[in-house]
Amino acid sequence: MEGTTDGVSADLPYELTASEALRAIRRRTLGVVELVRAVLDRIDAIEPQVRAWVMVDRAGALARARELERQFEDLSARPLFGIPVGLKDIYDARGLPTTAGFGPWRERMPPADATAVARLRQAGAIILGKTVTTQFAFADPPETRNPWNPERTPGGSSSGSAAAVAARMIPLALGSQTAGSILRPAAYCGVLGLKPTYGLVSRHGIVPLAWSLDHPGPIARSVEDLARVLGVLAGVDPCDPATRTARVGDYLAAVRHPGPPPVCLRLDDFFEAAEPLVSSQVSDALDLLARHGAEIRHARLVTDPRLVADAQQTIMQVEAAELHADLHAEMADHYAPRMRALVETGALVPATLYVRARRIAQRFRAEILALLADVDCLVLPTASNLAPDRSTTGDRRFQAPWSLIGFPALTIPAGLVDGLPCGLQVIAGLWQEERLFRIARWIEGVLPPLPAPRLGLRGGSVSMQ
Amino acid sequence: MEGTTDGVSADLPYELTASEALRAIRRRTLGVVELVRAVLDRIDAIEPQVRAWVMVDRAGALARARELERQFEDLSARPLFGIPVGLKDIYDARGLPTTAGFGPWRERMPPADATAVARLRQAGAIILGKTVTTQFAFADPPETRNPWNPERTPGGSSSGSAAAVAARMIPLALGSQTAGSILRPAAYCGVLGLKPTYGLVSRHGIVPLAWSLDHPGPIARSVEDLARVLGVLAGVDPCDPATRTARVGDYLAAVRHPGPPPVCLRLDDFFEAAEPLVSSQVSDALDLLARHGAEIRHARLVTDPRLVADAQQTIMQVEAAELHADLHAEMADHYAPRMRALVETGALVPATLYVRARRIAQRFRAEILALLADVDCLVLPTASNLAPDRSTTGDRRFQAPWSLIGFPALTIPAGLVDGLPCGLQVIAGLWQEERLFRIARWIEGVLPPLPAPRLGLRGGSVSMQ
Repeated sequence: MEGTTDGVSADLPYELTASEALRAIRRRTLGVVELVRAVLDRIDAIEPQVRAWVMVDRAGALARARELERQFEDLSARPLFGIPVGLKDIYDARGLPTTAGFGPWRERMPPADATAVARLRQAGAIILGKTVTTQFAFADPPETRNPWNPERTPGGSSSGSAAAVAARMIPLALGSQTAGSILRPAAYCGVLGLKPTYGLVSRHGIVPLAWSLDHPGPIARSVEDLARVLGVLAGVDPCDPATRTARVGDYLAAVRHPGPPPVCLRLDDFFEAAEPLVSSQVSDALDLLARHGAEIRHARLVTDPRLVADAQQTIMQVEAAELHADLHAEMADHYAPRMRALVETGALVPATLYVRARRIAQRFRAEILALLADVDCLVLPTASNLAPDRSTTGDRRFQAPWSLIGFPALTIPAGLVDGLPCGLQVIAGLWQEERLFRIARWIEGVLPPLPAPRLGLRGGSVSMQ
Repeated sequence: MEGTTDGVSADLPYELTASEALRAIRRRTLGVVELVRAVLDRIDAIEPQVRAWVMVDRAGALARARELERQFEDLSARPLFGIPVGLKDIYDARGLPTTAGFGPWRERMPPADATAVARLRQAGAIILGKTVTTQFAFADPPETRNPWNPERTPGGSSSGSAAAVAARMIPLALGSQTAGSILRPAAYCGVLGLKPTYGLVSRHGIVPLAWSLDHPGPIARSVEDLARVLGVLAGVDPCDPATRTARVGDYLAAVRHPGPPPVCLRLDDFFEAAEPLVSSQVSDALDLLARHGAEIRHARLVTDPRLVADAQQTIMQVEAAELHADLHAEMADHYAPRMRALVETGALVPATLYVRARRIAQRFRAEILALLADVDCLVLPTASNLAPDRSTTGDRRFQAPWSLIGFPALTIPAGLVDGLPCGLQVIAGLWQEERLFRIARWIEGVLPPLPAPRLGLRGGSVSMQ
């Protein structure tokens, strides 16, 4: 693969992407136990600075690594053979509690693996532990720090997953997005994140927030890794009816044949609404893509994107209120303030308002479908701003519209502004993840890679892509 | 075609099905003007007894008939060439008011044809006029009589369409179903009706009642006619986003190759909940199908069908309240009592309850999908009862579940009980209309045809199928 660093010094295996590590394991230049030990050592070294983990299953991960080393002949059929993965702490994984950041659930053991987790294990992945989530995957600020600046938020709600991947504590992690909870933390932390098409990945065994908006998805440091893990996760699951029409593609094949230079539609409304430094950084990235052959067209939306974000908010609060009615009745005092307000406000919304929000979504979906008829993808900044201070998890208005209508969205680092990462968000049509990966892989080859954040004993000089 | 009456005496052209009339026109044994005149004469003779029409466009229909006779060379490309069609008075048709049964809209002229109406015209159909709808296609009893007994309701809300087709005033009419408004009146009146898969037929230009539940569809006197008109109506329409994933089949080919004898799953819950006479009549019909080779299996639902009907009711009232908020604020006094109560109650429903209803729908959809995996169709009585008196439009609980989850449903006459018709309801999987037509055509060939209702000057001895 061009643009990868398969030749990286083997004494820093935690710096490898999942695909790079897999190739090293396949060549037998890296052992699975060796990789897991390196990752655990890295966590020991820098976790106190980042606080990305709820728990690390040291013994379980090492035992599984040893077991895999005895199954080396199965490697070719297992696209994540030996790869350590972090799980946002709303995913059920046998033997580990699922807390969802909720105090009373500290010891809550799940009955079985979530479907996504079972698929990861089947593919040879090693569940390394649980990463920090905001409470119930909503918006109350977590303890996790942004690896680029400990005073800034890593974003939320997949805070630990994004921070751990950015800090090179793990090559891959799963997150979830209801408004902007995969793409925003990925962008704030300078890594890649994917929110797949609604219904492509099963939610069975994942603590829900809002059933018509919840999307599981991966966070990683390369497009190839996102494609690799999506190939493992995607598909119909009888336990999640939303997946019944899932259309799965060959994602790894797509990243192996990137390009041609895409036709991108730049959504000007978002560039105008973003902070000027973000807007100009992402515009510069698009200019660079254009110089390499991409065609950048401009569009302005008919449906006000602020209205769309409000519609997403209404639907989210109502569905959260419905899901939490019983638990909130029993344990309101244990709820974090923003989550509590979400549920309590949601219970007051009249159904006619919810339906109006759905109709706004339908109109917006039709508009986006029409826009995508003539181009390969839409492009906009992933967030309106750089990671703000830790009193908030950031601004979800740029990610929420795509969660509302279920279209796939991918964020890719577009450089640093004032020492903080900035993301370029790429949107494709429903079930068009193959196309999205081809485009993203092409973009990844054009944009300059981010350095790693300065962290820990080895911090500062590590460049990964 | 076996089972049809193409040899019927040409002096009763209003008794022909649409497909029979089309073949006679093609053979030049029936003229288009002659057919329209016969239909108009029939309406003159019996409309005072039935009251199925809001308005009949006598001059427009005759002018169009004359025009078509000059375009005879286009016949083969037009599957409804010269066929008079009635439109439930919620469909926009240029030049005719769309009243939706609402007093203040008596003169309300539409800007253009509904998409469905434009497609009918393109296929050579002649718009004969507007048939009676309950106000806004809800449940306030209309003036229309049941052709089998003037003291009974024809059912609703497509009351005039079903009564006009049953009374041989028109071979084909369009209706719409939000709870049970196509299948119930068709069953009560002893004709056939189809509610296609949600999103197969455009609603653009049709007065809505509840956007996630509204289904346009045809009422006719043969399976072939339903298939013929669905072939004209079905397809993607950019003006109705719900149609964006429509999957269209070759419906006429399906009825030309009916059978083999289907594997039917009998939903016992509905047979137990139906009035005993209805239950035993429909059971007898299934016994007859079994003697001709159909396999009848039994199933009981996990999801209580009463809960499903309640969920449909909640969603309908909320969506109606949302749609009618402005009009009701201005003109509440013009609303009929049940429609007014629907809108006013709907405005009080909390959104969490609406979402809970949606989740019941999702669970029920998953259950029905699983049941359909092993059989060709589900069977149940179309309604729990025979047409009741005119103080109501009847019982929608047996039709509403299929409107809620969007699966195609077809009713076919299953004989008379106490002189009133009874319907057999057949349900197939999403987008499985071809299969549904093959099954229905096979059933139509096995079940004894209903006689025509006794009406008008010629009433009593006319048998049509």
